[in-house]
Amino acid sequence: MVKMPLGDQPLYIGIDGGGTKCRASIMTGDLQVLGTGVGGPANPFHGVQQAKDSIRTAAELALIDAGFPPVVMSQLIAGAGLAGVNVPSLYEVMSSWQHPFQSMHLTTDLHIACLGAHNSDQGAVMICGTGSCGYSYVNDAALFLGGHGFPIGDKGSGAWMGLQAIKAVLLDYDKLGPSTILSHSISNFLQAEGLMIVDKMFGAKQGDYAKFAIFVVDAADAGDEVASGIVKEGAAYMSAVARRLWATQPGRMSIIGGLAPRLVPWMDKDMAEHLSPALYQPEFGAVYFAKQQSNKCR
Amino acid sequence: MVKMPLGDQPLYIGIDGGGTKCRASIMTGDLQVLGTGVGGPANPFHGVQQAKDSIRTAAELALIDAGFPPVVMSQLIAGAGLAGVNVPSLYEVMSSWQHPFQSMHLTTDLHIACLGAHNSDQGAVMICGTGSCGYSYVNDAALFLGGHGFPIGDKGSGAWMGLQAIKAVLLDYDKLGPSTILSHSISNFLQAEGLMIVDKMFGAKQGDYAKFAIFVVDAADAGDEVASGIVKEGAAYMSAVARRLWATQPGRMSIIGGLAPRLVPWMDKDMAEHLSPALYQPEFGAVYFAKQQSNKCR
Repeated sequence: MVKMPLGDQPLYIGIDGGGTKCRASIMTGDLQVLGTGVGGPANPFHGVQQAKDSIRTAAELALIDAGFPPVVMSQLIAGAGLAGVNVPSLYEVMSSWQHPFQSMHLTTDLHIACLGAHNSDQGAVMICGTGSCGYSYVNDAALFLGGHGFPIGDKGSGAWMGLQAIKAVLLDYDKLGPSTILSHSISNFLQAEGLMIVDKMFGAKQGDYAKFAIFVVDAADAGDEVASGIVKEGAAYMSAVARRLWATQPGRMSIIGGLAPRLVPWMDKDMAEHLSPALYQPEFGAVYFAKQQSNKCR
Repeated sequence: MVKMPLGDQPLYIGIDGGGTKCRASIMTGDLQVLGTGVGGPANPFHGVQQAKDSIRTAAELALIDAGFPPVVMSQLIAGAGLAGVNVPSLYEVMSSWQHPFQSMHLTTDLHIACLGAHNSDQGAVMICGTGSCGYSYVNDAALFLGGHGFPIGDKGSGAWMGLQAIKAVLLDYDKLGPSTILSHSISNFLQAEGLMIVDKMFGAKQGDYAKFAIFVVDAADAGDEVASGIVKEGAAYMSAVARRLWATQPGRMSIIGGLAPRLVPWMDKDMAEHLSPALYQPEFGAVYFAKQQSNKCR
């Protein structure tokens, strides 16, 4: 057996797998980060094999970053929070994975985000990035809201905003909808106009749509009516999610994700005021979860 | 050379390729139908190889139906109207196909629908089935509206209605949107509730979404507010399309497609009144086009 890098102390890896990237950090039991790696998309809803590959890549890069040999992989106690595994069949598929770790404790990206954000079992968290969703955990009861994926759910998210934007641009092009500066910013970004936009979007995935979100919030802030309408509708949804989460009396509530800072100013004031900063990154929540679960197993 | 079934008279095949099926009819020069066959989806936007296979299948079945040997395939003068080929790159791909016919004259499904609906070069037509779009051809000028495909366009279509319905059902499930009888009808159809609906919709294509459209129009007719909202939004879009088409002074305007009879009662009255019945099926329009084009080539 290979000697453990830290002697007999257990080594953890916290994995945060989202729709656009997967982040993994190797940590000691007292949450000292030894190395971090980033892989590709890890939402099994959009590709099970890709999710597995992205987790493995992120873990390999984290090992290199930590200066550990590859063989240490099999000694890591993994906590993994993945987007999409709130869908039962995807939880099953990912649970039965012959993963490369000593053990893997699987939960949702929302759960680890919540554990990390509050450094506690209790709390509520919303994610607004490529996708969107809400989660609270209070008195052993979990509430999941949204997170149904693209294109049927994830309202208010980057991918949703991007799809709404493309629809608006095509309506503008056909003179069947109001004129919007999104037609200029998105045409410029894609280097395409009108039907050529349709061409460029051929086979586009949620991550491709999410790239337009920045143009939507920029245009909304600049007063464009079409963009403001999109952002207001998205923010109203996230406000409604916040309201349902807050009603579970989580004590603390946070919103994270790349789009969150741009969306919060558009949310209902009373809900925005209930938001507290996230204390730790989701990877820490993943290790918190792994420690909690492996202690239960002893 | 194999003897022509009708001696020296040319034989035509009219092909109408849509998002859910492809219909082909073998006809004489004076539009007598000798045989008809139906194949699978033929919108190259959703799969180029599938579109080619569907066309070939429909043609083979039409030959069998007509009682002709397979070798007659290479003697057919084809007129093909395909969804999706208004996108330039897809027109190129389908044009360069090593098709099995003597010659193939390619245009859009809209163009052949318009030629067939009015038995004339001039006119306007809207399609509202799995997808939606509008087209007018007046004084050698064509106007295309919509037809941008799922999920970025095709508002008012069956696929669009189905997606809107699934979104509404999931909002209802999360208690983040109004209650709707669509939650019952769609859950019943899918034999799934809540998150299991997300599971069932995994990898769903436009045709899968379009299956829900019937529940939406039924619920709207029964007074369900959520469903009425969806149908009204779709009908308002098709009314706006009709208004732009009518402004080109096409003389005659028709709406075709499986959802059309259910959508028309929700359209703006003044536009609904301008609608005339389609005279012939799109396959006849395809043969009209093939004759027109092959006469030009002589």
